[in-house]
Amino acid sequence: MEINTPKGFRDFHPWEERIRKEMLEKIEKTFIKYGFSPLSTPAVEFLNVLTKKSGKEIEEQIFKIEGEEVGLRFDLTVPLARYVGGNLNLYKPFKRYVIAKVWRNEEPQKARYREFIQADVDIVGVKEQTAEVELLFLAKDALESLGFSLKNARFLLNNRKFLEEFAKHFEVNSGFFFRSIDKLDKIGEKGVLNLLEKEYGEKARKILGELKKGKNNEEKLKIIKEFSEEAYEELSFILNYFKKAEINLSLVRGLDYYTGSIIEVKLSEEIGSVVGGGRYDNLIGLYGKEEPSVGLSLGFERLFYLKMKEIKTKKYNEANVYVCFVGENFSYALEVAQVLRRKGIATDINYSKRSLRKQLDYANNMGYKYVIIVGDKEREEKSVVLKDLEKREERRIKEEELSSIKL
Amino acid sequence: MEINTPKGFRDFHPWEERIRKEMLEKIEKTFIKYGFSPLSTPAVEFLNVLTKKSGKEIEEQIFKIEGEEVGLRFDLTVPLARYVGGNLNLYKPFKRYVIAKVWRNEEPQKARYREFIQADVDIVGVKEQTAEVELLFLAKDALESLGFSLKNARFLLNNRKFLEEFAKHFEVNSGFFFRSIDKLDKIGEKGVLNLLEKEYGEKARKILGELKKGKNNEEKLKIIKEFSEEAYEELSFILNYFKKAEINLSLVRGLDYYTGSIIEVKLSEEIGSVVGGGRYDNLIGLYGKEEPSVGLSLGFERLFYLKMKEIKTKKYNEANVYVCFVGENFSYALEVAQVLRRKGIATDINYSKRSLRKQLDYANNMGYKYVIIVGDKEREEKSVVLKDLEKREERRIKEEELSSIKL
Repeated sequence: MEINTPKGFRDFHPWEERIRKEMLEKIEKTFIKYGFSPLSTPAVEFLNVLTKKSGKEIEEQIFKIEGEEVGLRFDLTVPLARYVGGNLNLYKPFKRYVIAKVWRNEEPQKARYREFIQADVDIVGVKEQTAEVELLFLAKDALESLGFSLKNARFLLNNRKFLEEFAKHFEVNSGFFFRSIDKLDKIGEKGVLNLLEKEYGEKARKILGELKKGKNNEEKLKIIKEFSEEAYEELSFILNYFKKAEINLSLVRGLDYYTGSIIEVKLSEEIGSVVGGGRYDNLIGLYGKEEPSVGLSLGFERLFYLKMKEIKTKKYNEANVYVCFVGENFSYALEVAQVLRRKGIATDINYSKRSLRKQLDYANNMGYKYVIIVGDKEREEKSVVLKDLEKREERRIKEEELSSIKL
Repeated sequence: MEINTPKGFRDFHPWEERIRKEMLEKIEKTFIKYGFSPLSTPAVEFLNVLTKKSGKEIEEQIFKIEGEEVGLRFDLTVPLARYVGGNLNLYKPFKRYVIAKVWRNEEPQKARYREFIQADVDIVGVKEQTAEVELLFLAKDALESLGFSLKNARFLLNNRKFLEEFAKHFEVNSGFFFRSIDKLDKIGEKGVLNLLEKEYGEKARKILGELKKGKNNEEKLKIIKEFSEEAYEELSFILNYFKKAEINLSLVRGLDYYTGSIIEVKLSEEIGSVVGGGRYDNLIGLYGKEEPSVGLSLGFERLFYLKMKEIKTKKYNEANVYVCFVGENFSYALEVAQVLRRKGIATDINYSKRSLRKQLDYANNMGYKYVIIVGDKEREEKSVVLKDLEKREERRIKEEELSSIKL
């Protein structure tokens, strides 16, 4: 009997999903506060839309639909580019947010899945690094709104223009070089050195050594300036406004479409980056008119993983009140429940003829705070028995008092 | 150049998506008020999970993933059944809600798409029709919370036990018979008669005629009683509590897993049912221990279609305030924006060195209510110019006053 989810796909129990929803709501509020608007695109896109500039590695991870030229989206940036390309009349800058599932057919690992939620903000139509600055402040606010400490947080920056010139200088293929460097977190320095040595021999050690140079932002900026004046200016601008950021010369990010700034945020060394993004000035041009753009994606699954480590108790139900009935009094119980619901109080109700004992057990198991009991006497008197399960107190009140009671 | 979504898949512009989100939030609030908890399951399930009891017609509509034994879910009930089957320790009744996308590879038609959102509530572990009554009240509340008039609304009821006995009596195959009857809304009475005549000849007219008998609930209940005592009792119970409901003898619904009550709600004759559901007492047993269950699904896309007909103006952005700057004052503009955002005011900001004229045009196009302008003078004085675009008034205020201002 098949009762599992496919590998890399997960169920979220109510006591987990409730926390996910609370987190997503906080993220969304931050996005809106920064003046971003929601956009929704389908889960499914044409394959030639998805593969236009995604890079070989990602392309292999696309879940394709049988018999159709379509597949599941692997990120939320490509669909945005396709949308902007097809809607030339949007006012620019176009600032959109989206919180949605994406899918990648890769080997599942710790806090990495085949289906996961990304929360993205993108600014389309701004070439200035003011946009990057704005996004960095937004990332900081979003993480703080989720209750994470930023004491050990690292806001890492790099620039593809530097990396491109660097690759040119060392005469290495930028695609392979970027993909290898991107694995530093996953397979470590030795692993990356191995990869590079197989392709470039002796040169590999020198290349990697160069990327480790510089003790602070100032020294690293100097190195960057040697390769790319533009990268130097762009990074200097961002650092001038967002002083918490630090340059990381080997930061590259996997996607092929980045053209300038590269951004990653780590909360701790345990779990990799929780925010990632960058500038992609040429992507939208592939689908329509070119628009300089920059975006950030919050890695929601990792944030959720970190949050769950703090959560100790399971909350089974949002409701605080459970209406019990004895005898043939479902009708009156329902009437009482509807009074509370009209007040906006989340209220559950018993559905079956079962002993009061069993109804109270259920209320206790679910963690409800209050129980309301009605029977023949209560129906006739138009009253209810209100029981506080935490304080273990009970009292009788009139039904009409219910609409003014605090629960 | 490919800039479209695949057929049957849609983008939602920010001014649409904002309305969708508002509607979904209202639906979710109603679900929570009735004591339902959120559950999340993956978009992708094993094919043998999806096809266990879905019926031939639906099975053909599953989007399959290439090279894997998995497909996209076509509804939210089968994943629930799989989840409950695999989690035997859940407290019963288990009341869950879910608002999520489902996918069906069928021919798109008016307000019917290949990707659409369903909003489902299900009560697992209750055999009594109290559960149906609760769901009917919930459906009524949810529709009212969305601002729809229920003046012409029809709450339609039927029972599969009656239909099964009816099919037995007329010696017709219930699968084919149900699928045909289910098409009444789509292809009309003549169309269905045609279908049935091809299969059953002369008998067809008599069968269809029988289902049209009865002028009111009372008369229809009598007909039902002739075929199934159980169906009669169950429907009588529901009608006793939810008096707005009306019996429709030919209501069947497409899915094979229903075993008892069948429910549909129509707001008007224009667009078919906006709520549908029923009782499926045997479905969960296919994945684990049997649990009598009943659920309703709100057809969100149709509700959205109806809502959009009322909406006249596009709201491009949630923000009310746009911070402009002249000269080199991005830094001060950002500072001002952050003050407002900390207050929870959604605030947009200019990113580029462009004329104040252009910045104000943008603010007008986006429909912002207020504009804040800062330049050298304002930065030095720690003041801002606040412009009310609706009233066409402007005044100068101190930066410190911003944190107490009402916008």
